[in-house]
Amino acid sequence: MRFSIIAIGDELLLGNVVDTNTPFMASLIDANGWQLVHSCQVHDDPCDILFAVRDALNRSDVVLTTGGLGPTKDDITKQVLCECFGGKLVYDESVAENVRRIFAERGLPMNRLTESQAMVPDCCTVLPNLTGTAPVMWFERDNKVLVSMPGVPREMRYTFTDQVIPRLKKLINGAVSEHPMLHSFYLLEGISESDLDTMLESPSTPAPLRDIHVAYLPQTGYLKIRLDSDDADVLANASAQFRELAGQYIFATGDVTPERAVIDTLYDRRLTLSTAESCTGGNIAHMITSVPGSSAIYNGSVVSYSNDMKINAINVPAEDIARYGAVSTQVATAMADGVALLADTTCSVSTTGIAGPGGATPGKPVGTVCIGIHTPLGTAASTHHFTGTRAEVIERASVRALTLLLRALPPTTPNQHIKH
Amino acid sequence: MRFSIIAIGDELLLGNVVDTNTPFMASLIDANGWQLVHSCQVHDDPCDILFAVRDALNRSDVVLTTGGLGPTKDDITKQVLCECFGGKLVYDESVAENVRRIFAERGLPMNRLTESQAMVPDCCTVLPNLTGTAPVMWFERDNKVLVSMPGVPREMRYTFTDQVIPRLKKLINGAVSEHPMLHSFYLLEGISESDLDTMLESPSTPAPLRDIHVAYLPQTGYLKIRLDSDDADVLANASAQFRELAGQYIFATGDVTPERAVIDTLYDRRLTLSTAESCTGGNIAHMITSVPGSSAIYNGSVVSYSNDMKINAINVPAEDIARYGAVSTQVATAMADGVALLADTTCSVSTTGIAGPGGATPGKPVGTVCIGIHTPLGTAASTHHFTGTRAEVIERASVRALTLLLRALPPTTPNQHIKH
Repeated sequence: MRFSIIAIGDELLLGNVVDTNTPFMASLIDANGWQLVHSCQVHDDPCDILFAVRDALNRSDVVLTTGGLGPTKDDITKQVLCECFGGKLVYDESVAENVRRIFAERGLPMNRLTESQAMVPDCCTVLPNLTGTAPVMWFERDNKVLVSMPGVPREMRYTFTDQVIPRLKKLINGAVSEHPMLHSFYLLEGISESDLDTMLESPSTPAPLRDIHVAYLPQTGYLKIRLDSDDADVLANASAQFRELAGQYIFATGDVTPERAVIDTLYDRRLTLSTAESCTGGNIAHMITSVPGSSAIYNGSVVSYSNDMKINAINVPAEDIARYGAVSTQVATAMADGVALLADTTCSVSTTGIAGPGGATPGKPVGTVCIGIHTPLGTAASTHHFTGTRAEVIERASVRALTLLLRALPPTTPNQHIKH
Repeated sequence: MRFSIIAIGDELLLGNVVDTNTPFMASLIDANGWQLVHSCQVHDDPCDILFAVRDALNRSDVVLTTGGLGPTKDDITKQVLCECFGGKLVYDESVAENVRRIFAERGLPMNRLTESQAMVPDCCTVLPNLTGTAPVMWFERDNKVLVSMPGVPREMRYTFTDQVIPRLKKLINGAVSEHPMLHSFYLLEGISESDLDTMLESPSTPAPLRDIHVAYLPQTGYLKIRLDSDDADVLANASAQFRELAGQYIFATGDVTPERAVIDTLYDRRLTLSTAESCTGGNIAHMITSVPGSSAIYNGSVVSYSNDMKINAINVPAEDIARYGAVSTQVATAMADGVALLADTTCSVSTTGIAGPGGATPGKPVGTVCIGIHTPLGTAASTHHFTGTRAEVIERASVRALTLLLRALPPTTPNQHIKH
């Protein structure tokens, strides 16, 4: 089953907005064993939309469009879809009722633009949109499907997950492979994509690992690897061989983020976490607390951006800062210990460094970051050097702190493996 | 001058990676007065790449490609470009030298895959890539230009900004409009896109504001507006009228983020900031500290995710938490005052609420957030309700805290306008 995505909106081609809708849909298409063959972004322009829709209908069985439906967009997209599928705009009471309901909920007055959203092509089926005012429109012709969804990410996500995917599954039931692709995921740190590839393609690498499809998914600060096979035994053997070969670089398994891995691991081992962040400026706290349920293991953070904050909030000795500098393993150690005491946690991580672009001192270039790790086994700190922009140094240092924590944790005892 | 962008990579169509390269290039294309007419994402597949390149060369004068050049990608892209522009792969000593230099800098051993990066089409000009091993290739034929750049964002950004843009400017000098488009930007909160549009298109709205092109750029938590004109006087008049009409909703002006506006405003007024975050979990700290130079006004944050952290780190009275609940204006006020005292700052913001999906209590549904604002004029707290996912509630609450701070700041005195 071949899919295309068309994201409609001037803002996408002006660079004002990052298109996160396409990757969201792409990952769900892949997860269902379908194939996304092409995606594109076009202006709110009738000719561009028409060309893109016709091209996509030629390339694929299912075309997903997002955007081009806002109240200020003059319904360009709807007119084009009328032209493509042969129909005209008619007033749809169910859409009008939904618009009135949402405006009432938000306590907003209706206006002429919102009224116009109720005009939809008579050649489509309107699917419910509980999250917004734009209609979701399902077109079918010549065994091809086109679904037009709103561009607001929240509305698109709800629509695609709750309305479109179940309908697509029902429609193409039976056309799906009887042997869906199976995956194993690994998160690695300390090895490059090309070195890992060289290692896996070496003649000494045993089959099936040498022959299995390996997807390299580089992330900021770590490498994500996916092994693919439609044979469960082949995948299990290859996975065991991969863990044997690359074990020293693997810090987490499964289709997870580093922060999710930290939360799950700490939860399983009944440990708790706090953070003390200088150069990462709250990013580790933000990563952890973005995961629902993180409060079960996470007590909080002190973002000690100034020296006084380090001294007053988490008891870093002023003489350590004066003697070794704020960017030092001594200060990182004191920060980790200080925040674990303040927040009453069994584990903590700390960062102090130079995210750039300014702030470099002799011997401590931009990208120098000291990371402290506190666990029930003790506290250790180490110095790291990261390259890239300020945002990349912050991101890489945050991920490194989490991988260091995962590696520093005490080994599990058999009892702790039991789920509680 | 018409541009197309082709982003190459299986990972983009599997949804494993968000394409941030395209919006980065798009905004620079727009800033230079050029026009991006189309962008797309294709697999690492020779047929798909060839089709996309031919289509893009038909549509536009300049085609930018990113990705498809990694050491594990087997040089598919280079072979396709040889076919398109008529050439063959040859060994380029300057690329090999660059690969050796970068591996030496990173202390990594060379391998067979990195050696292969030195093979480039003989029909292109190789531009320097100081940030990575992949070659940057510039092709010209029939008054069309194609530039092939690496997909790693840091390498693409350097390449595009430092190598490609200056060369494009030189090439198309004279073809650029003598009247480049001028822009005014406004950040608004408290009005919807459609209500603003209705207001601006009302017959009572004076020209030139009624006639000027207005771009609506909705962001999570606020609305960004861009007024466009190639006539400076028209733009100045329309901008003055816009400020008159929508002033109550405007919390910042210029092409800035809310965090940048906060930092600039506090710096200009010689004020300092700290934050105490519960439900936003460090996101406000992360937003602020992501801006270079933020340490001039920002001392730090306490992410008080647990009640004990609120009590022990920033002195929130335990009896307030017991009596009013952790999500209350009383606790938000105490958090704001507590962190301002601890961090020794003139201003602070605090958040305490329910980001979801769990945690709702009777009378306090998911999305309820109390925000405290401390300024030299005093401390105030208010309760807000946000919709959306956990990530959206965190983002919206963070932005609202910053807009509330900007609005609560004491009015400037003439002296404070003088730059120091």
